[in-house]
Amino acid sequence: MTLDDSYLQKFGFIKRETLSSINIDPLQTGGLLTEAARKALAEWGDGYSVCDYCGGVLDQIKKPPIEAFVHKALPEFLGCDKARVTNGARESKFAVMHSLGKPGDWVVFDGLAHYSSYVGAERTGLNIKTVPHTGSPEYYLEPEGYGTAIEEGIKEYGKPPALALITYPDGNYGNLPEAKKIASICHEYDVPVLLNGAYSVGRMPVNAKELGVDFVAGSGHKSMAASGPIGVLGVREEYAPIVFKKSRYNKAKEIEFLGCTARGATIMTLMASFPEVVQRTRNWDQEVENARWFSARLEDMGFIQRGQKPHAHDLMFFEAPRLYEISQKVKKGRYFFYKELKKQKIHGIKAGLTKYFKLSTFGLGREKLGIVADSFEEILQKYEEL
Amino acid sequence: MTLDDSYLQKFGFIKRETLSSINIDPLQTGGLLTEAARKALAEWGDGYSVCDYCGGVLDQIKKPPIEAFVHKALPEFLGCDKARVTNGARESKFAVMHSLGKPGDWVVFDGLAHYSSYVGAERTGLNIKTVPHTGSPEYYLEPEGYGTAIEEGIKEYGKPPALALITYPDGNYGNLPEAKKIASICHEYDVPVLLNGAYSVGRMPVNAKELGVDFVAGSGHKSMAASGPIGVLGVREEYAPIVFKKSRYNKAKEIEFLGCTARGATIMTLMASFPEVVQRTRNWDQEVENARWFSARLEDMGFIQRGQKPHAHDLMFFEAPRLYEISQKVKKGRYFFYKELKKQKIHGIKAGLTKYFKLSTFGLGREKLGIVADSFEEILQKYEEL
Repeated sequence: MTLDDSYLQKFGFIKRETLSSINIDPLQTGGLLTEAARKALAEWGDGYSVCDYCGGVLDQIKKPPIEAFVHKALPEFLGCDKARVTNGARESKFAVMHSLGKPGDWVVFDGLAHYSSYVGAERTGLNIKTVPHTGSPEYYLEPEGYGTAIEEGIKEYGKPPALALITYPDGNYGNLPEAKKIASICHEYDVPVLLNGAYSVGRMPVNAKELGVDFVAGSGHKSMAASGPIGVLGVREEYAPIVFKKSRYNKAKEIEFLGCTARGATIMTLMASFPEVVQRTRNWDQEVENARWFSARLEDMGFIQRGQKPHAHDLMFFEAPRLYEISQKVKKGRYFFYKELKKQKIHGIKAGLTKYFKLSTFGLGREKLGIVADSFEEILQKYEEL
Repeated sequence: MTLDDSYLQKFGFIKRETLSSINIDPLQTGGLLTEAARKALAEWGDGYSVCDYCGGVLDQIKKPPIEAFVHKALPEFLGCDKARVTNGARESKFAVMHSLGKPGDWVVFDGLAHYSSYVGAERTGLNIKTVPHTGSPEYYLEPEGYGTAIEEGIKEYGKPPALALITYPDGNYGNLPEAKKIASICHEYDVPVLLNGAYSVGRMPVNAKELGVDFVAGSGHKSMAASGPIGVLGVREEYAPIVFKKSRYNKAKEIEFLGCTARGATIMTLMASFPEVVQRTRNWDQEVENARWFSARLEDMGFIQRGQKPHAHDLMFFEAPRLYEISQKVKKGRYFFYKELKKQKIHGIKAGLTKYFKLSTFGLGREKLGIVADSFEEILQKYEEL
């Protein structure tokens, strides 16, 4: 193969087909840019743009006001002593695990933890013990399970875990575990607690101090209306010297962040959206109401919402026995639902899924949610006779 | 502090002051977006936009054509068997070091290695042995120095190094070491070689196979006209199972990339600029000619270019005894030069520097380079009598 002009044509500018759709993919609803972020992206798009006035440390840049954002606004927003921006929630979690643990150590995860938490532990060389959930239909996480897991793990590994993780909420059912209770149990064993808030920080109020957790990881592209990849990390004072340890080769650079992380337009979009993001977390009750309203409409049609009930988050998991039945009979098979939704300009339920799927109602508002629910209803009616 | 409206006002959209300047900061010249990338940024700015059609693996996304880009175009461009996108050149280097080495192992670095290489090794727990350069004025790196370092290190650590690194070119003098010779020497000791091409990949032709290196790291935001943070990593076939090892918890996810890296608009800008970036590496001779022409003009004014001569890269380091002399006498002291340049709308030489500074001529063309050289000359003339 040669990189000739005709081959290279496939790259260059490419349209985003889904732009005109209502997007209910949980990955997408919290990452839609605000108008301010769109403008920031155009202004700061060039490579290393934020580094024009950098003296060597990203989070000390005064112009644009990254320093104020990272050292004042973010800690206040996250309810923690110290904060940093990272390349994403997974990178935040890895930085914590890698600085606190060493190969052969072990960690406690909730049974609904995201794969990237597993991969982060694996990259660090940590063993993982999980706290079981109750399975279908609630997938409830018993806080006391953490105490049991810690005691069992101490017997198994001969030492306490380096860290306990709470996924808040998980990315399948949108369940919000009792973080405060869990943190308190873990602290009885002197185990530090990391809250994975990839689906909460920027959507709903999350305050590390109030929950009693030691670390909080958030995702800019998932839940803070930022262009990715970018994340945030909040840290309790006592752990700052460990997680933010400086290089012996360069006193200005922090090891776990390889010296510098969100060194481009990503941080500018995060900052641009921040005022609106703060605001929207204050309207969280309305989002929860919308989620419940939507869930009720779907349940009226015969869908079954799995996970916590009444639900407390916009991310929801549905079982759809009727859609599954239809998929067994129609020509297009399991792709029929995706294709019907596409006709209605609704995107975000993975192609091929009918029996089980997840979606998010975040930021859509009643009108758009109504359109989605009506579309679901129409599709069911269309195949009623089948 | 509370996050009230008046405080939050300092964030939101912020103008980029330097946008109207000629920017000669080596960090910035290769990262200026192309028109196609600007359009891509607007189209794909939302959080996780590229994931609309993701089946679970970023580099297997067919729409947009990330799969073709990562698995066909990039390996061809880098001259390597396999490639991935990462969150930056430093993250590429860390992935290689972390997968090849374990705490207590050691690595060989050239004496001009970037700080992020040091921090990456430190994060992995690797000891570092450096190959000395010849110091001022050439800072030349003797290829045989790698053999000496490897032999000395084997005596010191009782084992061969996990990796040798070549910084190509370094970020201070823009020196291009004899990578092919160095790689061949390292291979005599069966030591794999990583080329740090943060300042070369996307500016000039870099072909891992031709140079005989096993890994090549490149930077999207530094040298490939992409919005950051994003990088590329090329890997020789035999090392792919190590660096791209999959998680035991999730067979689709690669451990060193935490499952997924450039999951947003960054990859779309990299792909959008790619056709032009391929093209510009083919015009590299003209860039080198421009750099030499600019260097000659500055030397005519009494500046002294340090590093390789004749120079073979756009990144150059100058000594400026006359500017330093002036700075000792003028009111504004060492900031006078920065302020004078600012008046002329030239940005990129760090505020406060006069005696030594670096700059880049990349992509500016003769006309803009002429304006910069003329401005330097005018500033010298203005203070002639001092």
